Amino acid sequence: MIRVAICGGSGYTGGELLRILSKHPVVTITAVTSERSAGKSVVDLFPNLHKYSNLIYEPLHVEDILDRAELFFMALPHGESQGAVDFFFRNGKKVIDLSADYRFKDIKTYEEWYRVSHKFQRTLEKAVYGLPELYRKKIAKASLVANPGCYPTGAILGLYPVIKNKLIDVASIVIDSKSGTSGAGRKSDVEYSYCEVNEGFKAYAVVGHRHTPEMEQELSAIAGKAIKVNFTPHLAPFDRGILTTMYVRLIESVDTEKIIELYKKTYTNEPFVKVLDVGRFPNVKNLRGTNLCEIGLIVNIRTNTLIIITAIDNLVKGASGQAVHNMNIMMGFDEKTALDTAGLFP
Amino acid sequence: MIRVAICGGSGYTGGELLRILSKHPVVTITAVTSERSAGKSVVDLFPNLHKYSNLIYEPLHVEDILDRAELFFMALPHGESQGAVDFFFRNGKKVIDLSADYRFKDIKTYEEWYRVSHKFQRTLEKAVYGLPELYRKKIAKASLVANPGCYPTGAILGLYPVIKNKLIDVASIVIDSKSGTSGAGRKSDVEYSYCEVNEGFKAYAVVGHRHTPEMEQELSAIAGKAIKVNFTPHLAPFDRGILTTMYVRLIESVDTEKIIELYKKTYTNEPFVKVLDVGRFPNVKNLRGTNLCEIGLIVNIRTNTLIIITAIDNLVKGASGQAVHNMNIMMGFDEKTALDTAGLFP
Amino acid sequence: MIRVAICGGSGYTGGELLRILSKHPVVTITAVTSERSAGKSVVDLFPNLHKYSNLIYEPLHVEDILDRAELFFMALPHGESQGAVDFFFRNGKKVIDLSADYRFKDIKTYEEWYRVSHKFQRTLEKAVYGLPELYRKKIAKASLVANPGCYPTGAILGLYPVIKNKLIDVASIVIDSKSGTSGAGRKSDVEYSYCEVNEGFKAYAVVGHRHTPEMEQELSAIAGKAIKVNFTPHLAPFDRGILTTMYVRLIESVDTEKIIELYKKTYTNEPFVKVLDVGRFPNVKNLRGTNLCEIGLIVNIRTNTLIIITAIDNLVKGASGQAVHNMNIMMGFDEKTALDTAGLFP
Amino acid sequence: MIRVAICGGSGYTGGELLRILSKHPVVTITAVTSERSAGKSVVDLFPNLHKYSNLIYEPLHVEDILDRAELFFMALPHGESQGAVDFFFRNGKKVIDLSADYRFKDIKTYEEWYRVSHKFQRTLEKAVYGLPELYRKKIAKASLVANPGCYPTGAILGLYPVIKNKLIDVASIVIDSKSGTSGAGRKSDVEYSYCEVNEGFKAYAVVGHRHTPEMEQELSAIAGKAIKVNFTPHLAPFDRGILTTMYVRLIESVDTEKIIELYKKTYTNEPFVKVLDVGRFPNVKNLRGTNLCEIGLIVNIRTNTLIIITAIDNLVKGASGQAVHNMNIMMGFDEKTALDTAGLFP
Repeated sequence: MIRVAICGGSGYTGGELLRILSKHPVVTITAVTSERSAGKSVVDLFPNLHKYSNLIYEPLHVEDILDRAELFFMALPHGESQGAVDFFFRNGKKVIDLSADYRFKDIKTYEEWYRVSHKFQRTLEKAVYGLPELYRKKIAKASLVANPGCYPTGAILGLYPVIKNKLIDVASIVIDSKSGTSGAGRKSDVEYSYCEVNEGFKAYAVVGHRHTPEMEQELSAIAGKAIKVNFTPHLAPFDRGILTTMYVRLIESVDTEKIIELYKKTYTNEPFVKVLDVGRFPNVKNLRGTNLCEIGLIVNIRTNTLIIITAIDNLVKGASGQAVHNMNIMMGFDEKTALDTAGLFP
Repeated sequence: MIRVAICGGSGYTGGELLRILSKHPVVTITAVTSERSAGKSVVDLFPNLHKYSNLIYEPLHVEDILDRAELFFMALPHGESQGAVDFFFRNGKKVIDLSADYRFKDIKTYEEWYRVSHKFQRTLEKAVYGLPELYRKKIAKASLVANPGCYPTGAILGLYPVIKNKLIDVASIVIDSKSGTSGAGRKSDVEYSYCEVNEGFKAYAVVGHRHTPEMEQELSAIAGKAIKVNFTPHLAPFDRGILTTMYVRLIESVDTEKIIELYKKTYTNEPFVKVLDVGRFPNVKNLRGTNLCEIGLIVNIRTNTLIIITAIDNLVKGASGQAVHNMNIMMGFDEKTALDTAGLFP
Repeated sequence: MIRVAICGGSGYTGGELLRILSKHPVVTITAVTSERSAGKSVVDLFPNLHKYSNLIYEPLHVEDILDRAELFFMALPHGESQGAVDFFFRNGKKVIDLSADYRFKDIKTYEEWYRVSHKFQRTLEKAVYGLPELYRKKIAKASLVANPGCYPTGAILGLYPVIKNKLIDVASIVIDSKSGTSGAGRKSDVEYSYCEVNEGFKAYAVVGHRHTPEMEQELSAIAGKAIKVNFTPHLAPFDRGILTTMYVRLIESVDTEKIIELYKKTYTNEPFVKVLDVGRFPNVKNLRGTNLCEIGLIVNIRTNTLIIITAIDNLVKGASGQAVHNMNIMMGFDEKTALDTAGLFP
Repeated sequence: MIRVAICGGSGYTGGELLRILSKHPVVTITAVTSERSAGKSVVDLFPNLHKYSNLIYEPLHVEDILDRAELFFMALPHGESQGAVDFFFRNGKKVIDLSADYRFKDIKTYEEWYRVSHKFQRTLEKAVYGLPELYRKKIAKASLVANPGCYPTGAILGLYPVIKNKLIDVASIVIDSKSGTSGAGRKSDVEYSYCEVNEGFKAYAVVGHRHTPEMEQELSAIAGKAIKVNFTPHLAPFDRGILTTMYVRLIESVDTEKIIELYKKTYTNEPFVKVLDVGRFPNVKNLRGTNLCEIGLIVNIRTNTLIIITAIDNLVKGASGQAVHNMNIMMGFDEKTALDTAGLFP
């Protein structure tokens, strides 16, 4: 058994960590923090998690909880996570940070896009970007894992095989994402109230979304050269899921079958990536509650363009499920522990 | 007063024609046809249209209704519309066809994409593509108007100014559309049942959607040269609306303000196109029940790409509202008659 | 032309007043107030109301706007409305108050259920309860109309004929209502955020909802004796509409046809009440955007119970549409002016 | 390990059986039948069940599958289940029938409400009504269990303690239920298509729903005398869940605390019934994917009426989860096996 603490456990990401970990046979949750909900029990905030009626939110005092866990999940807002992560890391703990604070190799990029200064460069240098399909070996040895953003997860997994194999013009990348509303978090904001979102559909943060540089960092690393992308997120009227439709110009003409073969080969040993057969495309509905990323592919031979469509559950593969996957790798557990579930349909 | 008949009046498009025309002061509906619902009243199928309790569906017998109207709205399925349109047209009637049967200049393109043969080439040659913003003068003189498809309406209006002014690389066009489920029509099909669509989101007809050649025909005509596009439609869990996000490479760098200025100038006299100010983007929610097309624009200077986002109500500007607009032009009525409504929000 | 002001115009009720009045041929809106949104234009808050781009929200200063209108719609929160209503009324203006402040004959009942003291008893005595079907003549002569609550509107219209005709045991009334989320208003509150409401369904304010005494006041007045009801409201995942299912014990057995005949006769001249035929029951979907109340009826002969089901659009017949109806009556306009619309379906 | 077959495995109930059983450590599924989908794999119909890619639907030939399983789940339509159930039962197999065919003690009641004749009276006499909270001991010994209907499950569990303890006037029972659309099954029917259900809410089968006599049979058995109820089901725009609001007249006044105490005591050892504390009421959103029934209670002292509100997931506790619970009891497994999951929220 390992003891685990969750810092920032009152949002959707925190609730999802609790839900997933409730199925984990060798994990005990010893602390869960929330400033606003301190004193309340988990079941007060998440009536679906009735097993946790005895788990009480406490304010985050890093010294107080340091000795109560071997591993810390950090689900705090960007900027607020930095210091606590650094503290636990320096004290020899394993840390999985779900915020953006430790995702960027280049501290300037972080500071520019997030408009926060970063005070822990040394710790930042030790962080591993927690996308298991690309960095499994590093994650296994890491003490600090920066869990990827939801949009980058679906985009990078979709683009990795063709960039790696130099099949596309990397100056042509279009990433058009549609996200369920849980991606906005659990907060009081008229913009995300039911009657504003329901029956609506809109783009937001057009050109300026903060996940853009995160995608670019990872895609550039794969390509071995600087890549800039066109990324547009959209807010959609459903709870969970991100569907990402990508358009990339092929350097030479390749047929759909060959592309699918390449993707299947690339991800053949990956428990959480599923490449669909010719003519099949993913639907976020089938993935609710699962840690899967599904990928559908087709070449438009009239324009020599590859269309790549990926789908994930933003709260699972896009956040808490991937965090648990990272924990499993870091701790040497079977990777699928607590994550091997069928989606809830309908 | 003019007398109007609706052929194929039991689907969502037919219902929407009836709803809009109920506000038209100089139109009388003298006949509405439906094979399956013959004998039922309109209010049986559309309880919202309680004024039409005395209007009874009849089977379509073209000879029987020929003399009962001056103008015929044809809302029949593709392939089924051809013959009836030809009959009314040859008998000197005005016809607005909401099917795809008379949209294509090149009969081969129609036959290839719709897998139906076209038997009325001469009549086809007389048809005018009913996008008022591009073809107002021709529509005013036409007896046969082919009402545009829902996706082409939003795409063409968004691309027209930059193609016309040769600002973009026309080989780079990406059109990513998200449609409400009413676009699938009123039919019994497990795929469109509530529990399959709700909480889901997926692409469909990827690469092969029939609105692709329709867009290409019109965009090529604007450009004066052949254009091929990447078009992906998606099925979204809301009733009404299409949001289309488009990505086009700019030939030279232009700033967002200049682009918006160009669009505002282009559409300055258009009653149903609204170009949004800098930083604003459309939401389908605001347009429900209206004949408007809203356009939001921004240049991504990091990639020299223009992002164009348009929104319409697919049943109004994308179908029945545009049809009534065409009627108003053909008959010399004020263009805004019966179409000058505020959207229903929330 | 009459000049009209709207006090509290930034919520859903205010927006709906603006939408409906935009179709009213003899009304000019001269002022619209909002404390939080002062300085913004209506179109900033309601992009669907693009005609109102020149109408700017101002803070409410009653002296400043007194002379700018003949009639004032008050869409302020309960308790905040009292003073302003009194001021306009005392200065000879016509006032329609959409809050609960002037609905109660018994000031104690108001103070007890709303936990606010009422300071304007004399003005309160002049207020007429604005349910046109019951109080048309009084409304026509009134200067101050208290617009009914959304739930009471559907409940009272459904129960009026059988209570009036003494057909039921008035001690047996069960009123089970299901409301769309727009009834909660336009506000930032986690409880009404998209992911909390969507895919959910719950009762709220069970036993203690403030519309209970309002229903009881009016039903008692019809019966000529004190009535207490069981009323449970539910929050449902759609935007607009209230469906109310009522159960009442019949004193003697009556068949469904007779009951429907009674209802049709009772409401025969009412433009906004529609009694459905045997076997038909209302659906909120058909009423969106309309001022109608639809009523379906059936007798359960096995239990000698009458089931009455009513549906309205809570923002129209349940609020702003009924307010405009009251204005039409007070001003001597045709009652259907600006309200004679077909529902938006789908 | 026991071998299990599912007859009728292509609907939502069948899919849910497959999903739940995928977590069951001692069950192997050896056959799954479907006439329409014979030859397809489970994953073709349920992309969320990707583990079942090798499980192929076959037509139901009872002789062929008789020897392939010890226990048969029957998820066939009413009327079609009778014969196959009888066959498996007579051949010594254990059978859990999710249809209504074996729920009624009185064959006449079944034939009258379902308009089908019942040909297997002897087998019917052996069937046990599969509500574990009431009939656990009988279920443990049974070979044939008739799994309860979705509405009766929530209604009976809510009424059992007060009827058993003779606290209410059993002539006063009102049962008002709101069901998600998955209750209608997976079928092509315009009435259940997305645009008809979404943003709508309506009652259906008013007075005449077939679950009425099923509730009455069980409630009468509890009371020891004949009970008739008022039951109205409603169709709601969400996927999963039934919320049932019940109104019963108390014989003597009792306070809410006492009632809750009685319910908690009654269900104290029940793993799948959760009685909520004072002031708390259930929301279907919290129960998605779980086998729980949550119960909220309050006395309206003004009318001496008890309001009982229950919520379940109609596909789990209302169908397939309860079926697996029954299997666990029949086979002597831990009752919570495969059913001990937290709800998916949001």
